[in-house]
Amino acid sequence: MIEYKAFRIELADKVAHVVINRPDKVNAMNADFWSEIVEIFRWIDETDEVRVVVLSGAGKHFSSGIDLLLLAQAASELGKDVGRNAERLRRKILSLQASFNAVDLCRKPVIAAIHGYCLGGAIDLVSACDMRYCTLDAQFSIREIDMGMAADVGTLQRLPRIIGDGMMRELAFTGRTVEGEEARAIGLVNRTYADQAALLDGVFTLAREIAEKSPVAIRGTKEMIRYMRDHRVDDGLEYIATWNAAMLQSADLKVAMAAHMSKQKPDFAD
Amino acid sequence: MIEYKAFRIELADKVAHVVINRPDKVNAMNADFWSEIVEIFRWIDETDEVRVVVLSGAGKHFSSGIDLLLLAQAASELGKDVGRNAERLRRKILSLQASFNAVDLCRKPVIAAIHGYCLGGAIDLVSACDMRYCTLDAQFSIREIDMGMAADVGTLQRLPRIIGDGMMRELAFTGRTVEGEEARAIGLVNRTYADQAALLDGVFTLAREIAEKSPVAIRGTKEMIRYMRDHRVDDGLEYIATWNAAMLQSADLKVAMAAHMSKQKPDFAD
Amino acid sequence: MIEYKAFRIELADKVAHVVINRPDKVNAMNADFWSEIVEIFRWIDETDEVRVVVLSGAGKHFSSGIDLLLLAQAASELGKDVGRNAERLRRKILSLQASFNAVDLCRKPVIAAIHGYCLGGAIDLVSACDMRYCTLDAQFSIREIDMGMAADVGTLQRLPRIIGDGMMRELAFTGRTVEGEEARAIGLVNRTYADQAALLDGVFTLAREIAEKSPVAIRGTKEMIRYMRDHRVDDGLEYIATWNAAMLQSADLKVAMAAHMSKQKPDFAD
Amino acid sequence: MIEYKAFRIELADKVAHVVINRPDKVNAMNADFWSEIVEIFRWIDETDEVRVVVLSGAGKHFSSGIDLLLLAQAASELGKDVGRNAERLRRKILSLQASFNAVDLCRKPVIAAIHGYCLGGAIDLVSACDMRYCTLDAQFSIREIDMGMAADVGTLQRLPRIIGDGMMRELAFTGRTVEGEEARAIGLVNRTYADQAALLDGVFTLAREIAEKSPVAIRGTKEMIRYMRDHRVDDGLEYIATWNAAMLQSADLKVAMAAHMSKQKPDFAD
Amino acid sequence: MIEYKAFRIELADKVAHVVINRPDKVNAMNADFWSEIVEIFRWIDETDEVRVVVLSGAGKHFSSGIDLLLLAQAASELGKDVGRNAERLRRKILSLQASFNAVDLCRKPVIAAIHGYCLGGAIDLVSACDMRYCTLDAQFSIREIDMGMAADVGTLQRLPRIIGDGMMRELAFTGRTVEGEEARAIGLVNRTYADQAALLDGVFTLAREIAEKSPVAIRGTKEMIRYMRDHRVDDGLEYIATWNAAMLQSADLKVAMAAHMSKQKPDFAD
Amino acid sequence: MIEYKAFRIELADKVAHVVINRPDKVNAMNADFWSEIVEIFRWIDETDEVRVVVLSGAGKHFSSGIDLLLLAQAASELGKDVGRNAERLRRKILSLQASFNAVDLCRKPVIAAIHGYCLGGAIDLVSACDMRYCTLDAQFSIREIDMGMAADVGTLQRLPRIIGDGMMRELAFTGRTVEGEEARAIGLVNRTYADQAALLDGVFTLAREIAEKSPVAIRGTKEMIRYMRDHRVDDGLEYIATWNAAMLQSADLKVAMAAHMSKQKPDFAD
Repeated sequence: MIEYKAFRIELADKVAHVVINRPDKVNAMNADFWSEIVEIFRWIDETDEVRVVVLSGAGKHFSSGIDLLLLAQAASELGKDVGRNAERLRRKILSLQASFNAVDLCRKPVIAAIHGYCLGGAIDLVSACDMRYCTLDAQFSIREIDMGMAADVGTLQRLPRIIGDGMMRELAFTGRTVEGEEARAIGLVNRTYADQAALLDGVFTLAREIAEKSPVAIRGTKEMIRYMRDHRVDDGLEYIATWNAAMLQSADLKVAMAAHMSKQKPDFAD
Repeated sequence: MIEYKAFRIELADKVAHVVINRPDKVNAMNADFWSEIVEIFRWIDETDEVRVVVLSGAGKHFSSGIDLLLLAQAASELGKDVGRNAERLRRKILSLQASFNAVDLCRKPVIAAIHGYCLGGAIDLVSACDMRYCTLDAQFSIREIDMGMAADVGTLQRLPRIIGDGMMRELAFTGRTVEGEEARAIGLVNRTYADQAALLDGVFTLAREIAEKSPVAIRGTKEMIRYMRDHRVDDGLEYIATWNAAMLQSADLKVAMAAHMSKQKPDFAD
Repeated sequence: MIEYKAFRIELADKVAHVVINRPDKVNAMNADFWSEIVEIFRWIDETDEVRVVVLSGAGKHFSSGIDLLLLAQAASELGKDVGRNAERLRRKILSLQASFNAVDLCRKPVIAAIHGYCLGGAIDLVSACDMRYCTLDAQFSIREIDMGMAADVGTLQRLPRIIGDGMMRELAFTGRTVEGEEARAIGLVNRTYADQAALLDGVFTLAREIAEKSPVAIRGTKEMIRYMRDHRVDDGLEYIATWNAAMLQSADLKVAMAAHMSKQKPDFAD
Repeated sequence: MIEYKAFRIELADKVAHVVINRPDKVNAMNADFWSEIVEIFRWIDETDEVRVVVLSGAGKHFSSGIDLLLLAQAASELGKDVGRNAERLRRKILSLQASFNAVDLCRKPVIAAIHGYCLGGAIDLVSACDMRYCTLDAQFSIREIDMGMAADVGTLQRLPRIIGDGMMRELAFTGRTVEGEEARAIGLVNRTYADQAALLDGVFTLAREIAEKSPVAIRGTKEMIRYMRDHRVDDGLEYIATWNAAMLQSADLKVAMAAHMSKQKPDFAD
Repeated sequence: MIEYKAFRIELADKVAHVVINRPDKVNAMNADFWSEIVEIFRWIDETDEVRVVVLSGAGKHFSSGIDLLLLAQAASELGKDVGRNAERLRRKILSLQASFNAVDLCRKPVIAAIHGYCLGGAIDLVSACDMRYCTLDAQFSIREIDMGMAADVGTLQRLPRIIGDGMMRELAFTGRTVEGEEARAIGLVNRTYADQAALLDGVFTLAREIAEKSPVAIRGTKEMIRYMRDHRVDDGLEYIATWNAAMLQSADLKVAMAAHMSKQKPDFAD
Repeated sequence: MIEYKAFRIELADKVAHVVINRPDKVNAMNADFWSEIVEIFRWIDETDEVRVVVLSGAGKHFSSGIDLLLLAQAASELGKDVGRNAERLRRKILSLQASFNAVDLCRKPVIAAIHGYCLGGAIDLVSACDMRYCTLDAQFSIREIDMGMAADVGTLQRLPRIIGDGMMRELAFTGRTVEGEEARAIGLVNRTYADQAALLDGVFTLAREIAEKSPVAIRGTKEMIRYMRDHRVDDGLEYIATWNAAMLQSADLKVAMAAHMSKQKPDFAD
C-alpha cells in the first residue's frame, strides 16, 4: 500500500485501487489532491504490472468536489489588471484540467466506484473515467452552477458524450441531485449495487476480468474508443489499421489462439 | 403580453413564455411565423430581464409543422433554369434554417413544452431547443418523408445528437408516430406529464428554478454544451478555460459564496 | 434468387434480402464473404429497383464473425521485416474495412435482422447497418478482445455512435455476452422479437413500408444522417440546403402532395 | 450612384464599385461604416445585376482602420462587473466581425483596390476580400499591436491562409509597414500598379472580365474556394459533386458550349 | 512497355513513366482515360518494383483536359426528373473524381512533367500529383470557368493548398493562362526547364534519386504529408508516432546506418 | 547567464537568448538536450520578465540534428515482442515530440537564428519556432530520409504550413540541401544575413522591438495564429472574441492610447 496525502493506493491481481483518502473532509479536492493525482496516474501509466484501475472514495462519500479553500485562495491571488488576471486564471484552469486529463489519457482502463456524494468536481472526475458504477444511494449533482460558475474541469466537455443531450442540459442548468437508479437509467453509470461492499465486490470482479485479457489489446481498445470521441469514422478506421499493423505482430494473438484451442485460460505478458 | 401575428409572449419571474398562436391552423408555420421567431429571439437575447424561455403551442396542439401554402408558394416562384432555381431554393432553405438557428444560438435556455401534434417542422424546432417535456398524448412524427423530401430545417442535423442513432434512422425513414412515453424512453423528451396543465406547471417550476441561478453561469454553461456538440474535448477544455478566465472575475461567485455561507438564497444581477 | 458462395439474395417488393449463407460454418466470414459483400452492395447501389435491404443469417445464427482460417492465413503470409509486414497488414485491414464500408455507404437503408450468435466481426458488420432488430435469444459479444486484439473492422469506430460510451467500453473490454433484451435497452437494437419468424415478419413489414416512400427522399435522408455522424451542425445544415436545392425540384414532392390531397397512396418512380 | 454616410456605390457593366467615402477622416471606420457595410453587401448579394464588386477608398488612402472614437465609446460603456463587461465586449466584437463576414460570405467576388494607408482594421477588411491589388506606395500595417491589443476582426484568422506563416507572425508581432512591392512578393496582393489611376484601370478590367463569365459558375467557384479554406479535400470533393449535381443542369453550360462552337462571346443571364 | 488505349507505361530503374498517349487529340481525357488511370495506379500501388511515378503527355502538349464528347454524352443521358438527374450527375462526378483520387492516394510519389497545354481537367490532374515541373512554354488555365461551370474534379479542392489563396481565386475566376515562369513563381511548379528534353531529363534524375531511398520511409513520408493537408498538427504528431512505432523496427534503418558508416550507397529492399 | 548541459541562457532587455551549446558535437541533440529544452521553455513560459526568445547554436553550426547515439540506444532497448516494442517506440516518439511542442506552445514568440548546418531534427525544431532567420551560408536538409525513416518529431507536421506543398514534398523525399537564399525564397526563413554577427544583430533588434509591445497583446496574437493553423475561420473568430472579452479590459490599451496621444513610447507591465 502506498500512502499519499490525499490518496492511498493498493495493488493486487494487477488491479490498482486508488482511494481518495480525506474522509473527514468528505474527500474534498485540495491542492494535494490535484497534484498527486497526476503523479499517481503517471506511475500507473508507466508500471506494466498495473493493468486496470479502480477509483473510489474513503469514508461515507466518493467526493464533495473541489475544496472551497482552494477557490478562495485562487481568488486572493488576483491583482488589479483584468487582463493579467484572466491570463493567470486561464492557466490555473488549464492546470486543474490537466489533472483529470491524466485520468482520461491513462493507457489502462479506469473504473469509478461511487457511493454517497459525487458533487461538482467529482462529476468532472468520473466523467474522465472509462466506466462508472455506483450504489443505489449515490448522489450526483453538477454543483458548480450553485457556485455561480460554469463547470470548467471537464463535466461540460465529457459528460455530453456519456448521457443524452437533453438530460445533460437539465442537470447542468439546475444542479439537481440524481440518485443511483436514475443515474443508471440515463447512462451515467453502467450498473447499481445495494451498498458499497457489493459495489466494490462487483467492480473488482470486473476489474480482474479485464486484467486477464491481453494488455496490448486492452490498451489498443481504450485508445480507439477515446479517439472516436473526437474523430470521424474514416479517420478512426485508418487509425486502427495503422495501430494494428504493429500490434497484430504481437505474441498475444498466438497466446490467445493457443488458449482457445486448448480450452485453457491464456496468460499474457504484461 | 406582446402580441405578434403568429405568436404571443408573456414575461413573468424572468421567464418569457413564447406561445405559437395560430390554434385554428394547428399552429402551422406560415411566413409570419418564420420571420417573427427571429425577431422574438433577438429580443430575448438582448433583454437582460429574460433569463429563461418556455416555448409552447396555443390550442390543442404544439404545431403541425410548416404551412403547406408556404411550400406551394415557394414552388410557384421557380423559373425555367434548374441551376438558378437551385440557387434560389438553397438560399430559401438557408433562410428558413436561420429561423431555428436563432433558437439554438439564443444565449438563454429554451424549454419546449409539447402537447398534441409535434409534426414535421415542429420536430426541427424542438430539436433546436435545450430541453423538451411533453404530455403523455403528445404525438411526434418526422412527417417530411411523407411529403417526398428529406427534412431540411434541422431535424436530421440536431436530433441524432439527442436520440440514439438506430432509432433516429427508423423514425426518419418511416415518419411513424411516437407518443409521450416512448419519446421519454428514447431521450427525445426529459419527462412526461399527464396533461397540458401539469406540463406547464412542471416546466414553469423548472424555468423559474433556472432563472434564479447566476445568469452569467447559465449562459456560459449553455454556450459550452452547445460548443461540445461539434467540437473536440481538448478544444472544449481550452474554450471554457478562456471563457472562465473572464467570468470567474464576476461578482456572481462572491454572491453565491456569501449565500452559501449564510444559508440564504443568492440574488444575482441580470 | 441469386446464389453466391457465401450469400444468397432474394428480391421482392423492392426489398433485397441478403442472407449470409454458410449455416454449417455458423456463417463465419471467409474470403468469399469479404469479397462478395462488396460486389453485392455495389449491385444494390446501382440497381434502382432495390430500395431497401434486409440482412440476415441462414441457419441457427446470424454469424460467428471472421473465419479463423482467414486470420491464420494472413499470419502465414508475413515475412521477416517488421516494417514491410506492417505495411502489408495495414493494407489488409483497410481492405477488410472496405467490405463493411460498402454497407455503410450504400445509398439504400440496410436493416439487420439478427438471431442467435452475433460475435466479433458480426458486430462490426451490424454496426455498419442503418438499424438493427433481433430475437430475444440473440447473443452479442465483441469477441475480438478474447483473440488478443483490438477490433479493427468497424465496431470501435461505429458502435460508440450507437450505444452509450460507458457501456461501450464495458462490452469492448470484457467481450461479455449481451442478449436481446439488454441489447434493446442500451440502444444496440431498436426492437426485439420472440423468435426468428416474428423477427423477419416484423423487419420485412418495416422494409416494405420504407420501400413505398419516395426513394429520392429516403436516399437523401440516409446521406444526411450518415453525414451528421462526423460533421458539425452548421456544415450539416449547409449540406442539406445544397442537396435539397436540386431534390426539391424532383417530381416526388408533387406526387406526394397529390396523394395527400386525394387521400391515396403515392406511387413513386424508382 | 447611391450615397451612404460612410460609402458611395456606383454600378456599371455589372460591376459595383463600393467606395469608402470619408476622405477627410482617412476613411476611418466609424459606427456608420460598420452598419452600412452589412446593408450594402446584403444588397449586393440579393441584386442579380451585380456580378462583381470593387472595393476602394476615396481620397489619398484606402483606410486608416477603426475610428478611435468608436473604441473610446465602447470602453466608456463598460460597467463594474468584469464578467458582464466580458459578455458585452464579446458580443460587440462578434458584431464587428459580422460586418466583415458579410464581405467574406458575399456570393460575388470582391476585389480590393488599395492605395495609401491600409492600417489595422483595413487589413482585417481586405483579408475578407477575394483578391487584393495595390499601388506601389500602398502601406500595410497590422496596427492593432500598437494599440495594446490582438487584432480581433479577422486579420489573425484570414491572413494566415493568404500569406506565409513565418512572415505572418513577423508582421503581426511588430506591426511594421509593408509597401506595395513587398506585399506582392509575400502574396498579400496579386499585382501592383504605379498609381491609383492605373490600379483602378487594371482592377476594373479584371472585374469586367469576371462579370462576363457565367454567374452561376462564378458563384459556385467562390463558394468552393471559401469552403476549402476550412474543410478537408474529401469533404470538398463531395460538396462540389452535390453542388454541381444541380448546377450542371443550368442553361449556362449550353450557352458556353454554343459560344465556344461559334467562336462568339457567350451572353449569360444574371 | 505496356500499351493502354489512352496511356502507355514504361518501367525502368524502379521508375514508372506513365504517358498520356492520345497526341492527335491533344491528350484529351476520354472515357478510356478515366477508367484506365484507376487501373494503372492500382497496379502501381500494388507493384513493389515501382517506387516512383513520372506522369507526362505524348506529343506537343500535356493535356487539353476533359474530352468534350464525354460531357456531351453525360448531358444526353439525363432524363426529365431534376432530382433523379441530380443523383445521376452527382454519382458521375464522384466517379470522375475517384480517377484522380487514385493518383492522390497512390502510396508512391507521383511527379508531373508538363509541357504545352495543361488545361481544365489537366490542372485537376496535376493538382493530385506530389510535385509538378514544367517547360518554360507550358500553359496552365483553369478552363472550366469558360465552359460555364465550376471545376469539379479536384482543382478547387487541392490547388488552394499548393498556391496562394489570392492568386488561386484570380486564376479560377478568370481562367487566364499562366506560363512556366509565373507557374514557378506562384508555387504551382517547383522548377522550369528550357524544353521537354531538359524537363524529362531533370524529372527522371529526380525520380531515380527518390527511387534509391528507403521505400518504407518514402511511403511513410508521403502518407504524412498527405495527412497534414487535412488534419491538425497534434493529430499528425500522434499519427506519425503510431506509424513509426512499426516502421522503425524495419531493417531499412540498419541498412541506412551501415551505409552511412561505410560511406557507401544503401541498397534497400522493395 | 544560466548554464545547462546542452544549452546556455542569457537574459537581457526582456529577451532570453537560448543557445544550443555543444559546439564540439555540432550541437547534436543528445538526451540532455531533449529533457533540458522542456525545462527551459517551462521556465520561459512562467517567467514574466521574459517576453521574447531567440534560439541559436554555439560554434559553427546551428545543429546537426538528433544524436545518433540516442537512436542506437533506443534500438538497443527493444525486446522480442513486436507489439510491445511498438508501444515503447510510440511512447518514445511522443516524448521526443513533447520537447518541441514545448517550443511551439510557449506563450512568448520564439525566433530561430540559424547559421551553418540545420539538419534533420534541427528542422523539426525550427519548424516549431514562430519565425526563422538565417545566414546566407545556412544549410537546411530534411536528413531523416537518408536514415531510412520518415521524420517524426514535427517537420512533416509543421513545415507544410510554412512552405508550399510542392516544394515541401521535394525536400522531404530527397533530403537535398537548401541554402539561405533559397530558404528565403520558399518562405522557410523571413530574411537572410551576410554572416552570423549580422544575423544576431538583426534578430536581436527584432526581438527587442517585440519585447517593447504589450505582452498581453503579443501573447494573444501568438495564441490566435497558432490556433488558426488547425481551426476554422469561424471558430477562430469566436475564439478571439472570447479571449479579447477579458483582455480588452486590461490596462495595456490605456497605456498604448496615452502613449499614442503623447507621442511617447508606451511602457507596459510584464
